[in-house]
Amino acid sequence: MRRNKPPMQAQQADANIGLFEAIDTQRALRYVKPDPVPDRYVRRIIEAGIKAPSGGNSQPWEFIVIRDPEAKQKLASFYRRAWADAEQGQPTQPDTVNHRSARHLMEHFASAPVMILVCLYTGGENPAFYDGSSIYPSVQNMLLAARGLGLASVLTNGWSKYEPEIRAALGIPEQYRAAALLPIGYPDGVRYGPPRRDPLESHLHTDRW
Amino acid sequence: MRRNKPPMQAQQADANIGLFEAIDTQRALRYVKPDPVPDRYVRRIIEAGIKAPSGGNSQPWEFIVIRDPEAKQKLASFYRRAWADAEQGQPTQPDTVNHRSARHLMEHFASAPVMILVCLYTGGENPAFYDGSSIYPSVQNMLLAARGLGLASVLTNGWSKYEPEIRAALGIPEQYRAAALLPIGYPDGVRYGPPRRDPLESHLHTDRW
Repeated sequence: MRRNKPPMQAQQADANIGLFEAIDTQRALRYVKPDPVPDRYVRRIIEAGIKAPSGGNSQPWEFIVIRDPEAKQKLASFYRRAWADAEQGQPTQPDTVNHRSARHLMEHFASAPVMILVCLYTGGENPAFYDGSSIYPSVQNMLLAARGLGLASVLTNGWSKYEPEIRAALGIPEQYRAAALLPIGYPDGVRYGPPRRDPLESHLHTDRW
Repeated sequence: MRRNKPPMQAQQADANIGLFEAIDTQRALRYVKPDPVPDRYVRRIIEAGIKAPSGGNSQPWEFIVIRDPEAKQKLASFYRRAWADAEQGQPTQPDTVNHRSARHLMEHFASAPVMILVCLYTGGENPAFYDGSSIYPSVQNMLLAARGLGLASVLTNGWSKYEPEIRAALGIPEQYRAAALLPIGYPDGVRYGPPRRDPLESHLHTDRW
């Protein structure tokens, strides 16, 4: 079902990329250049986000586009604190490519030229598991759109322990909750490609478990 | 960014569809024909699902492909019960296109030739809101893949009140929870197109709320 592969450069920034090519090669890219991302790309990413389904078409999302260095530093500090909390008393993590990549993101979080904080309307309640079905499809559309535009991104919510502090820092009303934060930038020495996954068969059942 | 539109027939079943064309025209299609869906399409949809990100690449998903009429009837009965529970004591719903469409789905739920139940590993705990970030991106990939293959689908979890009963009916271990159920079939008199959405500006903020 794939189209013929275009040369690398075009493949990485191809607004005409095929759906299945994008799905099959989208993955977390955590190394970004500081170069600015054009506003029209950021808007295109969010335009993709609002096309996703939500329960009763409630469209319970709000998007905060963050380029202000001070705001980014604040968000980075909550991400670092949550990382440090999680490391406390834990055995040392194995030095895998994934762990190095995650640590790089944590240490350089504020260096992404732009971030999008995706918020969910909850009316002030703490959101329940199924409420995620009205916001994370939108986030996935955004990650796919970033991939289509040749931009690096990754879904983060490792800061969730400090979600109330993030709301306070950005003036988010209590009727909303931060669901995901996407740092976005041009990939720095990393590129899209098939993600590492178990074979389909190991997660598949027929008619019943 | 859209490609030139191909004729309608091709547009509805175009495995080479562009990413942005698919994102911009994917929406809930709730009227399906009873005609069988080829297994390779069902597999392609789930292959798309397992390409989505999950926290720490944990791949906490399991997929049950359901074609057995008895199993479908059971699922339909829980969907109907949840609908009836929700209607009790509620004012009569306005007779909108959306409500008629949702009612049609409820009344004909078992007539979809195939369903995919997407389950999440939780270790037995009730899943929390942020756990949705490891399963609903997968569901969105599946809805986009269905759109790319010209198949109708819709994200349902209106049955969630009866999730334990669904687990019992399908033999799902207590370490897992049902997150979404996708009825899938060829569209019956409905087609993909731009979804009805608020303008981007009404959900957009810069640097802070």
